[in-house]
Amino acid sequence: MENIKRTEIATLGEFGLIKHLTRDIRHKNPSTHKGIGDDAAVLQYDHKQVLVTTDLLLEGIHFDLTYVPLKHLGYKSAVVNFSDIYAMNGQPKQLTLSLGISKRFSVEDLEEFYAGLQLACDVYGVDLVGGDTSASLTGLAISITCIGEGDTGKIVYRDGAKENDLICVSGDFGAAYMGLQLLEREKKVFTGDKDFQPAFEGREYLLERQLKPEARKDIIAELARHNILPTAMMDVSDGLSSELLHICDQSHTGCRIYEDRIPVDYQTAAMAEEFNMNLITAALNGGEDYELLFTVPLAAHDEVITIPGVRVIGHITSPALGACMITRDGAEIALKAQGWNSLSEENDHPQ
Amino acid sequence: MENIKRTEIATLGEFGLIKHLTRDIRHKNPSTHKGIGDDAAVLQYDHKQVLVTTDLLLEGIHFDLTYVPLKHLGYKSAVVNFSDIYAMNGQPKQLTLSLGISKRFSVEDLEEFYAGLQLACDVYGVDLVGGDTSASLTGLAISITCIGEGDTGKIVYRDGAKENDLICVSGDFGAAYMGLQLLEREKKVFTGDKDFQPAFEGREYLLERQLKPEARKDIIAELARHNILPTAMMDVSDGLSSELLHICDQSHTGCRIYEDRIPVDYQTAAMAEEFNMNLITAALNGGEDYELLFTVPLAAHDEVITIPGVRVIGHITSPALGACMITRDGAEIALKAQGWNSLSEENDHPQ
Repeated sequence: MENIKRTEIATLGEFGLIKHLTRDIRHKNPSTHKGIGDDAAVLQYDHKQVLVTTDLLLEGIHFDLTYVPLKHLGYKSAVVNFSDIYAMNGQPKQLTLSLGISKRFSVEDLEEFYAGLQLACDVYGVDLVGGDTSASLTGLAISITCIGEGDTGKIVYRDGAKENDLICVSGDFGAAYMGLQLLEREKKVFTGDKDFQPAFEGREYLLERQLKPEARKDIIAELARHNILPTAMMDVSDGLSSELLHICDQSHTGCRIYEDRIPVDYQTAAMAEEFNMNLITAALNGGEDYELLFTVPLAAHDEVITIPGVRVIGHITSPALGACMITRDGAEIALKAQGWNSLSEENDHPQ
Repeated sequence: MENIKRTEIATLGEFGLIKHLTRDIRHKNPSTHKGIGDDAAVLQYDHKQVLVTTDLLLEGIHFDLTYVPLKHLGYKSAVVNFSDIYAMNGQPKQLTLSLGISKRFSVEDLEEFYAGLQLACDVYGVDLVGGDTSASLTGLAISITCIGEGDTGKIVYRDGAKENDLICVSGDFGAAYMGLQLLEREKKVFTGDKDFQPAFEGREYLLERQLKPEARKDIIAELARHNILPTAMMDVSDGLSSELLHICDQSHTGCRIYEDRIPVDYQTAAMAEEFNMNLITAALNGGEDYELLFTVPLAAHDEVITIPGVRVIGHITSPALGACMITRDGAEIALKAQGWNSLSEENDHPQ
């Protein structure tokens, strides 16, 4: 027993680990259209394609209940799953929820969580179809599976980007990350003083992006209205840089994005300055933006720029050119996947 | 903040809690055919009905890694989900897996878990289509969602049992529970002695039922071959008594089952005697049998008894008669849902 080989998980990282563990999988069923490797799996039934995505959220790793209200947590838990379905150009339709709960939670606590989840379901037109609760010896565990629908031929994967395609994003980046930094700072400042008032004034947008994100259903509707079918698409949960590298990797391309085109909100910039952080690093690697990152053919340029909230930030290149950002002063720097790797050694604390 | 009402979850119990939290749910989508309240949700796409079931398994609550090998855990985690799909008269087709893992696990540990899961997928013809891993601050968390297919009109729910229907079961009961008692005893006896040999001889069946259960795909195939469509069906995970009460409750009926007809294996009986436990209590309330409990019309009697491993244990009655077991000496005792309620106070330890 003493000689069993032991490889630390951190040596592979999250994506490497999944790749390693699922490398030998061969599909057996005709209804399995696409398996592991995108925002959602794709199943095929007659003329309908069905999308399945799942998320496991654990207390202390994915959320901190000292500053996340349970109603917000319920809302966000649902929305991050809807975001994965929209990222495939589908519509979320059903959701199942499993909860592992410890004794410190009351029925009223769970009512709060469900109220948030149900609100998200109402806003996005999704049905809660399965529930399971059990005890947990430790913290709160939330497992959600979301099922969506798409039209055959209209599902958008990560691997369809072509040379010269335009790289587009919705919304702005880095705000949710800055919101998290702000919440963490106020948590440290708070020392049990009853009259403590956290310094959130003028930072409401950052808090909202962190605590109550929205999925870009509106952008998916606009793309359809403009008859634009993206060649590749993802939602930005682990950080813009990391997701763009996924698209390039799976599409076998390179890319060029431009620092001065990456959309950043004023509050994000002000906060970065206050924290003495590099703004563009936060925008590229912060994560949890839940915006859409997609590529469209060059011919769609004039049409896509008319969609409110969509911005062209660069273009797809041949793979030989690598994945780079052109800085404001014209330097070319390689994009790195500094995304949210919750399995690495240095990140083994709540974040 | 101090006056917020706090209702302990134990006052509602697991089933009561889910009922309470989901009482106001109204479905919005035409593809949502059946939501919460059965072994799986049912979605409708053209001529195909799609089944979705999900399970969250937490270390210390649902399994104890001191005596459950990771490969077995992987196998069992998949099989218990397949069992839910068969219990709807469907065929499992796809599975997604999310894992929350702490640092004490190595890549080799996870390879073991995946090997067991993949073996189950191969045996039952299921595709692993989605994977997600993240860190966990505490124990291992396993979330599995299984998707299955069924023919429209052939899905079997819990609410279809009719008066005079026969109550049938597959296999035998109480063995998995006795296997767990045995493992718990040997864990206590084991005091770190390197040469310790657990006393498992002649108890292999009990261990197998606990550590490597199978789902009754064979029974579903036999029922189809004999053209028998059950009127109601469930799989027995929480205990025969508890599941039968679910069927009676949802079908608005009563039932009579007979103590002397409840199938029990010889090893289960021997172990109950050794532990000085009531055998029939273990068979009725032990749980984790993953056998099928189903009802068929009286007219199917001669056909159903020809299926190997199926046994008629009683019949459905009018609701006024309640749900009872007739003992060997002719006494009538009310069935109770002593099923595995992991949220109750007295069960808040590993089991």
